[in-house]
Amino acid sequence: MTIEGGQGAAAGRRLRLGMVGGGEGAFIGAVHRIAARLDDRYELVAGALSSEPERAKASAAALHIAPGRAYGSFTEMAEREAARPDGIDVVAVVTPNHMHAAPVRAFAERGIHVICDKPLTHRLEDALELAEVVRRSGIVFGLTHNYTGHPMVRQAREMVAAGAIGPVRVVQVEYPQDWLTTRLEESGQKQASWRTDPARSGAAGCVGDIGTHAFNLAEFVTGLRCERLAAELSTFVQGRALDDNAHMLLRFAGGARGMLWSSQVAPGNENALRLRVYGETGGLEWAQEQPNHLLHSPFGEPPRLIRRAGAGASPAAAHASRIPGGHPEGYLEAFAQLYRELADQIAARLDRRQPDPASLLVPGLEEGLRGMRFITAAVESSRRDAAWTALEG
Amino acid sequence: MTIEGGQGAAAGRRLRLGMVGGGEGAFIGAVHRIAARLDDRYELVAGALSSEPERAKASAAALHIAPGRAYGSFTEMAEREAARPDGIDVVAVVTPNHMHAAPVRAFAERGIHVICDKPLTHRLEDALELAEVVRRSGIVFGLTHNYTGHPMVRQAREMVAAGAIGPVRVVQVEYPQDWLTTRLEESGQKQASWRTDPARSGAAGCVGDIGTHAFNLAEFVTGLRCERLAAELSTFVQGRALDDNAHMLLRFAGGARGMLWSSQVAPGNENALRLRVYGETGGLEWAQEQPNHLLHSPFGEPPRLIRRAGAGASPAAAHASRIPGGHPEGYLEAFAQLYRELADQIAARLDRRQPDPASLLVPGLEEGLRGMRFITAAVESSRRDAAWTALEG
Amino acid sequence: MTIEGGQGAAAGRRLRLGMVGGGEGAFIGAVHRIAARLDDRYELVAGALSSEPERAKASAAALHIAPGRAYGSFTEMAEREAARPDGIDVVAVVTPNHMHAAPVRAFAERGIHVICDKPLTHRLEDALELAEVVRRSGIVFGLTHNYTGHPMVRQAREMVAAGAIGPVRVVQVEYPQDWLTTRLEESGQKQASWRTDPARSGAAGCVGDIGTHAFNLAEFVTGLRCERLAAELSTFVQGRALDDNAHMLLRFAGGARGMLWSSQVAPGNENALRLRVYGETGGLEWAQEQPNHLLHSPFGEPPRLIRRAGAGASPAAAHASRIPGGHPEGYLEAFAQLYRELADQIAARLDRRQPDPASLLVPGLEEGLRGMRFITAAVESSRRDAAWTALEG
Amino acid sequence: MTIEGGQGAAAGRRLRLGMVGGGEGAFIGAVHRIAARLDDRYELVAGALSSEPERAKASAAALHIAPGRAYGSFTEMAEREAARPDGIDVVAVVTPNHMHAAPVRAFAERGIHVICDKPLTHRLEDALELAEVVRRSGIVFGLTHNYTGHPMVRQAREMVAAGAIGPVRVVQVEYPQDWLTTRLEESGQKQASWRTDPARSGAAGCVGDIGTHAFNLAEFVTGLRCERLAAELSTFVQGRALDDNAHMLLRFAGGARGMLWSSQVAPGNENALRLRVYGETGGLEWAQEQPNHLLHSPFGEPPRLIRRAGAGASPAAAHASRIPGGHPEGYLEAFAQLYRELADQIAARLDRRQPDPASLLVPGLEEGLRGMRFITAAVESSRRDAAWTALEG
Repeated sequence: MTIEGGQGAAAGRRLRLGMVGGGEGAFIGAVHRIAARLDDRYELVAGALSSEPERAKASAAALHIAPGRAYGSFTEMAEREAARPDGIDVVAVVTPNHMHAAPVRAFAERGIHVICDKPLTHRLEDALELAEVVRRSGIVFGLTHNYTGHPMVRQAREMVAAGAIGPVRVVQVEYPQDWLTTRLEESGQKQASWRTDPARSGAAGCVGDIGTHAFNLAEFVTGLRCERLAAELSTFVQGRALDDNAHMLLRFAGGARGMLWSSQVAPGNENALRLRVYGETGGLEWAQEQPNHLLHSPFGEPPRLIRRAGAGASPAAAHASRIPGGHPEGYLEAFAQLYRELADQIAARLDRRQPDPASLLVPGLEEGLRGMRFITAAVESSRRDAAWTALEG
Repeated sequence: MTIEGGQGAAAGRRLRLGMVGGGEGAFIGAVHRIAARLDDRYELVAGALSSEPERAKASAAALHIAPGRAYGSFTEMAEREAARPDGIDVVAVVTPNHMHAAPVRAFAERGIHVICDKPLTHRLEDALELAEVVRRSGIVFGLTHNYTGHPMVRQAREMVAAGAIGPVRVVQVEYPQDWLTTRLEESGQKQASWRTDPARSGAAGCVGDIGTHAFNLAEFVTGLRCERLAAELSTFVQGRALDDNAHMLLRFAGGARGMLWSSQVAPGNENALRLRVYGETGGLEWAQEQPNHLLHSPFGEPPRLIRRAGAGASPAAAHASRIPGGHPEGYLEAFAQLYRELADQIAARLDRRQPDPASLLVPGLEEGLRGMRFITAAVESSRRDAAWTALEG
Repeated sequence: MTIEGGQGAAAGRRLRLGMVGGGEGAFIGAVHRIAARLDDRYELVAGALSSEPERAKASAAALHIAPGRAYGSFTEMAEREAARPDGIDVVAVVTPNHMHAAPVRAFAERGIHVICDKPLTHRLEDALELAEVVRRSGIVFGLTHNYTGHPMVRQAREMVAAGAIGPVRVVQVEYPQDWLTTRLEESGQKQASWRTDPARSGAAGCVGDIGTHAFNLAEFVTGLRCERLAAELSTFVQGRALDDNAHMLLRFAGGARGMLWSSQVAPGNENALRLRVYGETGGLEWAQEQPNHLLHSPFGEPPRLIRRAGAGASPAAAHASRIPGGHPEGYLEAFAQLYRELADQIAARLDRRQPDPASLLVPGLEEGLRGMRFITAAVESSRRDAAWTALEG
Repeated sequence: MTIEGGQGAAAGRRLRLGMVGGGEGAFIGAVHRIAARLDDRYELVAGALSSEPERAKASAAALHIAPGRAYGSFTEMAEREAARPDGIDVVAVVTPNHMHAAPVRAFAERGIHVICDKPLTHRLEDALELAEVVRRSGIVFGLTHNYTGHPMVRQAREMVAAGAIGPVRVVQVEYPQDWLTTRLEESGQKQASWRTDPARSGAAGCVGDIGTHAFNLAEFVTGLRCERLAAELSTFVQGRALDDNAHMLLRFAGGARGMLWSSQVAPGNENALRLRVYGETGGLEWAQEQPNHLLHSPFGEPPRLIRRAGAGASPAAAHASRIPGGHPEGYLEAFAQLYRELADQIAARLDRRQPDPASLLVPGLEEGLRGMRFITAAVESSRRDAAWTALEG
């Protein structure tokens, strides 16, 4: 093995974790579990993994959850775990969008911390109401906009904030995929089915599923608020109920201008989230499929390839990094980063101390609401023929 | 030397070429001259190279133009060359935008063929009038949208037309540069000065200079007409008179949707024209800075890297190619391609025969007018807060 | 979240794991632990983590190992764990090279399965002796040539075996790094110290550390045996005791020819392991720093970019994959793959059933011996001025 | 058009050029002619283009050579051109390798300057003799190792010489192609036929054809002399008379070590010449297929992408550059660079002045002899089972 240094997984208190959703075949649940395990800060001890009792039970057994803590519903789970002395510290909610609100509320109201898959809910009004509940509860609440966990995304944010590229002028963000190029939902493919179904996904398809990631990434890195957008949502696949492509113009506070493109019908693109930010004195480029790299182009100098844990990598990047440069980290490690930082936050809460400030970047309620406003504004703008529409709040 | 085959420069009649503009220090003139020389189809024999007589004379001498054919004005040149039995067959007009119309008219009216730098003129009304004159004259008229001369652009067009990616849904075109990131025009840099001056460039800066190339490329490759656009033009550099960044939504006939971004304030980008086209069954990607490659992604298959003159290269690519695969061709070769094809057209005219159909793709009046309508619509839309604006005609 | 399908971590029996070495600050131990955790097939329950008692104890505590199972020496650990009814099923040996043999022997002789970091030992004669012991013991023995765990490496191997590129002619493998460009070992940096120390690393530096990975990868993917090599080992950094750069010619059984370059003094290279294999009908390229891609170039056709879990990905790649295409997996996931497959093998042994054949590709004794022969032959050849030297056995 | 500055083609005296070889279908002749034309420093006025009289005549006509100067043999051409007051200033010799020596001698002895395609001859003894003749003649002699004409190759050389990467330690050069993967010579393909024929190519196939380019590039950029090599030449295609793959270890004066790989049987590689040089304080990488880029990796800093005519481009790069950054130049422009510099040298000679020192880098006799010694040593070493063999002289 060839590793010249670097930090191992942070040691620290191991939290008791429960999960709602994520039974067998529900992919995102598996991702959350790997993310939770990776840095050894969680132990999965309880679950309401499926609304089908048999599946729930089988899934729990496969995951080494004790039979007594394999619940038939999140309500039951919330009640009984809250009552146990060794009840869960935190719950991960990994159900489809329309089923986020109820479990989040149930656990939050019992003081159990929550990690919720994005987007926050499937409707803005639900989100606003839920946010109120969560705020009042005082819990730690994390929303897994996982791309913010990448070391080089952290570094990009830090560099922009430090003025490395000067005041931002132009923001180009895009997130093309191709998996919905044909009418996959007709085949019964589970992911395709619910993501193209307004009842389960909300008013937006591609915009809600991946456009929100792109939007979140742009705001996260630039530190700017998008104030208005002009959106054209399209549905290219005949018979599909929601948009599968979105084109938008963006206006940011302070005068920066941008574009956002998200698509699920762009053949050749697997998961090609990419952000480019241009300021008065330089540019930055980051692409999800090559996440260990960040291209920094100071105006008037040759572009520099900054690599995770390599020369020029910043403290923020190091904080989010596990292994030496040249040993690629990927999607799961970035996801795990959010879990690790939430563990820091929750452990600090349990231990009645201040958390490490470096762990406070995990997206939460605020980002969840921004995402819902973005979706809502995009749908509204598109209905009004791409008229400029404000993101209130 | 290692060349395994390929075609040499096509032999053929050598034309007598004159040039208007392009004196010492005027860069684009030098490019046109190299392009004209590369395939040995032109001999530069006359010029009105500068409005300053001394510079005109010195430039002509440096270019081996006989003193008697170094003219003080394009008017004089048009008259005298038209009168010579060995007068020029064709003239290249390489002046700044606002000085295209007058010389084009002067030569066209005398039946001398014209190669004109883009855009056609600096105002749409002039362009329409000029187009009438040129049409009536019956001359061969070429407009140097040089990026259409690239072999892999030709192949992309051919593939789209042949249905290789199915009906087009999404068109993403962008053309970022960074050379106007600061207020370069204040330094007296000649290119920056006239390109940011409304009197010489017209109503658009970045949009007219490079946005038109992007627009032309998108229409050329897809074969689709853009019907409406919603544009936000920005001027980020304080004190600049014209736009230096443009964001647009595009609607094409037949339902395709697209985006266009052009910028001259995007640090790190030299000349990063790039086109991506997505259809129902596949995608295509081409980037000007790596012009020998075309990425073809048939949906459900691994992306394929098609290389100029390599496996999978089409007849259209071969037609526009000079040397074997792996030996990169570039900007000048693509520019020369237009010159070569115009030579074919003009020689055919002189010889009273039909030209090779493969040589008829050179942009001309029609593309020139499309470009002017694009510029006009973009400026108009931006004035109306990015309202959808039709590209009439 | 945007994941369109794919397989989650395989469920299965969770094994009790012990670790020798890998205390605080010893990086590779942390990598092994993450790898063990990632697919939830191991629980770390015992350790002899350091030869310094205090460090051993602190490390164990940080890793949630019960105090009674934090041992002061591997001998004690082997004895006591073998005696417990709930003793460890398997031990990971992650000490420096010269300390592999003794613990491996201790556990093997007690029937405890072993996962050993590479190379097998620091001297060939030890390796041969150890191999005998291990063979007689009948245990499952895995050697973490981790790069063989990458999905696209698996696919490359499968493709070569299936004749996708025809009989192999040329093998180009290289593994440059730059971290030893200066005399880092003088700074006290721990990794640099032992890796440049003959007493702890053996007769080879760069060759043993990373050259073996390159060699292993070449044999793994091609399925060919390297029979002879001609090596020039260099030490460029003054005062260094072992080689920091190696150049080799390789001859494979069946007539294929190759080159191997490994270096730790090549500035700009982080961990740039890269393999290219050319056969009679096609070529394959894989690079560790972009591990989700495999370039396949069938002769006479455009190169194809095969992506992990994308179109064209094979069953072997799917077997080694966790998440959908476009979501990059990296170094840790490949390392975890070996752990997962060893868990399959060990669980099958415990359950007295046949393991999944797909899990039998993990390098073991054979590859460990090949690696030692490679190191030995390289050192010998270099001493004899790059004379051809056989890899016996 | 979008060009922000840059230099046009240098004006200067136009030379009268003759050509030996290069008739219709002989590809390299066409390349030399384009190269000669590109910067307008030559006019092709005479030729002995083919040994077949009809082809010679037709070729001359197609190239606008006056009938009286279309010769049936180079001997006749040398005599008659030397006798004309307006005879050629310089001749380009573009015949197959075994036919370089005789015409070079014929023109040199008459004081006519010579541009010769590489390699110098097909046998070392001929080369040595020829070199004597050329030296005594006092003519300007250029050998078209065209890759040395690339701006970024020039910059790399300049940077190494200036110490930008410190003393060189490691040199990795490779030149893979795939066009001889099958027995193309059997098909009658002209290039394949003579390049695999010992009678016309000399004792080496791939080594002579492209290995020499790689070798020349390595010495040109590093400024180091390769003193010894150990080579394994292989012929993978059955029935082929010469090597089609070569693997070599290299030892340079001063202690640098290197590897050279050239192949014509590596599927997927078109013309993938690539050089990497590593010194004590940095690394440099250049690849022919992306020739406008040079990657500079100062140790301990992020790698920097230096682009032709962009930030960080050096005077040497500017000297060899025609158009602004981001507008790719390629193979023909680099080839033309040698022609331009030879025109500068010859014009200076004719004008009895000193040439621009920047024009003196064109390879000539010395490089030609180095190339022949390289070929000879490689063949000799391979015959002796890859024994170390000196490059004398």
